Amino acid sequence: MQHVRIGIIGVGTMGKRHATYLQDQLITGASLTAVLETDAERVGFLRDHLNKSVRVFTDEETFFTSGLIDAVIIATPHYDHSRLAIKAFEHGLHVLCEKPAGVYTKQVREMNEAAQQSGKIFSMMYNQRTNPLYQKLRDLIQTGELGNIRRINWIITTWYRSQSYYDSGGWRATWAGEGGGVLINQCPHQLDLWQWMTGMMPKRIRAFCYFGKHRDIEVEDEVTAFAEYENGATGVFITTTSEAPGTNRLEITGDRGKVVVENGKLDFWRLRVSEPEFNQTYQGGFGTPESWRVDIPIKGKETAHPGITQNFIDAILKGTELLAPGEEGIKGLSLSNAMQLSAWLDDWVNLPIDEELYYQYLQDKIKNSKVKKTDNNIALHVEGSY
Amino acid sequence: MQHVRIGIIGVGTMGKRHATYLQDQLITGASLTAVLETDAERVGFLRDHLNKSVRVFTDEETFFTSGLIDAVIIATPHYDHSRLAIKAFEHGLHVLCEKPAGVYTKQVREMNEAAQQSGKIFSMMYNQRTNPLYQKLRDLIQTGELGNIRRINWIITTWYRSQSYYDSGGWRATWAGEGGGVLINQCPHQLDLWQWMTGMMPKRIRAFCYFGKHRDIEVEDEVTAFAEYENGATGVFITTTSEAPGTNRLEITGDRGKVVVENGKLDFWRLRVSEPEFNQTYQGGFGTPESWRVDIPIKGKETAHPGITQNFIDAILKGTELLAPGEEGIKGLSLSNAMQLSAWLDDWVNLPIDEELYYQYLQDKIKNSKVKKTDNNIALHVEGSY
Repeated sequence: MQHVRIGIIGVGTMGKRHATYLQDQLITGASLTAVLETDAERVGFLRDHLNKSVRVFTDEETFFTSGLIDAVIIATPHYDHSRLAIKAFEHGLHVLCEKPAGVYTKQVREMNEAAQQSGKIFSMMYNQRTNPLYQKLRDLIQTGELGNIRRINWIITTWYRSQSYYDSGGWRATWAGEGGGVLINQCPHQLDLWQWMTGMMPKRIRAFCYFGKHRDIEVEDEVTAFAEYENGATGVFITTTSEAPGTNRLEITGDRGKVVVENGKLDFWRLRVSEPEFNQTYQGGFGTPESWRVDIPIKGKETAHPGITQNFIDAILKGTELLAPGEEGIKGLSLSNAMQLSAWLDDWVNLPIDEELYYQYLQDKIKNSKVKKTDNNIALHVEGSY
Repeated sequence: MQHVRIGIIGVGTMGKRHATYLQDQLITGASLTAVLETDAERVGFLRDHLNKSVRVFTDEETFFTSGLIDAVIIATPHYDHSRLAIKAFEHGLHVLCEKPAGVYTKQVREMNEAAQQSGKIFSMMYNQRTNPLYQKLRDLIQTGELGNIRRINWIITTWYRSQSYYDSGGWRATWAGEGGGVLINQCPHQLDLWQWMTGMMPKRIRAFCYFGKHRDIEVEDEVTAFAEYENGATGVFITTTSEAPGTNRLEITGDRGKVVVENGKLDFWRLRVSEPEFNQTYQGGFGTPESWRVDIPIKGKETAHPGITQNFIDAILKGTELLAPGEEGIKGLSLSNAMQLSAWLDDWVNLPIDEELYYQYLQDKIKNSKVKKTDNNIALHVEGSY
């Protein structure tokens, strides 16, 4: 293959952004050839504004069997991600999926299995993995510069959302429409980075989620989660959509030093000798290991969404290694599901989570929801469309 | 009374510091007239180094009935604080007690009752209350500048202690000797400041304490605690003695702004309109309340231990209001006890805590301790002394 023909599924806010940089020919080796959209208003807009060479489909089956596409970018509401990815794999297409990978791990596991069977390229749109700060932090951890990780603290409260935001779409912040709140909508990137940078998943989580605490919504709008790791490390993850000005501060301590990422910069303190070594040899009273404040060069720019799409295309055309393999989407989602489940159970949740139990709780939340469902909830359930 | 004659009980590290500034006449209206110490080696040192006018007692009864003192500073191991304070009140003496107020709230409640009955001046040595940064933060909160508190996050890990520190005293970091670890020995100031600055005690706590995780000790050396407040606020308190370089960062968010205290400075962001007001009136999508970064003047110096002692003397001589009333010592200790109890129960603990239940658990820890007890554990149990 010399050139990848891309079809975008779902052309809302994110789908439009993908369409724009593709049409602007920012991606080498790829072009936009088709979109699938079922919302009548959006379809009209797309027919007026997209290049004439781009075919606008409103029927899912026709789109998949058109022969016009080699790969899809899925940018629909969360619930449909897994189903559409599976369908794409069945049609022999490569898949780049917007975050989150899905709403519950059961569907995402099935998606991963379908990807595996298809042998096609599968990537997640984890665009924040292109941020050089997080890449460098991952580098420091993976090469042992931090030593064994002891403690992680991420305060990520820069997600201010007003009631008017939530009221702007009937599907927003509902169990049926999104399957959660700040964890599933705003935090998938941080939950992914958390496990990606450290290379560790917790063995268990105890989380405190508050549902509709500061907004008139039924899903979680404030979370504090505590995580325990196999190696003894602990982690705290704090998020909310109702604080201003928010904080985005990540602190990771290892037995060889400490890193803080905040305000777009990385601060690194390196211990001259590792903490355990100091502890074993020091004989005085109040001494502390000598720590050096080190300036770490951060090179490169955050290539964001186009960066991930280019990487996806390069993987298809040249076998380039994926920055965000699709199968890894289940990890961040597991963290999100575990946090909600822990709050519902008011107890610890072991990982991997009990995917059936989570699914049952979620169904129960949907069933008992008092939110009036709107058509938006099922934007891509296109039964009976022309 | 024109002049207060002070007796120091227990002249270890802290007792010596108090003796020094008193002998240096740094406290107006007070002088050191007596000390009580039972350790033979220390007694010899004191006889050689204290002013000849200072009487060195080795017998508790003789000290209390000497008629040489109007007030005591208690600087013994933690377990004896409450007992000695009660005894001092019974002898009509004013009391300034080192932190913590005691080891378990039951004894501290009894101490508070004795103080009440005596009508004497009773202060806690919460010297960090004299820090202008924390005074200013308290001022901002108490006058409503931060609005209703939403979230508190205190990472206080600047307590590095090596194994050699713990090995330097047989009573250190044992249930019998100290009654706890980092919470009872290192953190009493932060636990006090936490409640003092906010003016709030949690309604319940869920804590994760690790006992002897990174050091060969039986008590807690790492803690992450989650707190819930009546007004809906939440808090996280993180501490450990085995990280370097440590962090001391306190973030408090209210519905009118945010404060961060770190590296000896206070950063304040003030919302132009309160978050709830913005939320009620804003009609757009992704808008956020306008926040102003405000420079707050911090005046004055931290007067530390001598500052508290001077305030205590002024309260006796002139009726000056106490900066750290003794009865408030039970608050920080309640937080500490609740955190340990939550970890032992692996469950929520409501406040006020069940003081009998905590006491039983503590006795059990002491009974089942594998640490060999040394004489140091009972430094001031002076039965049979001359």
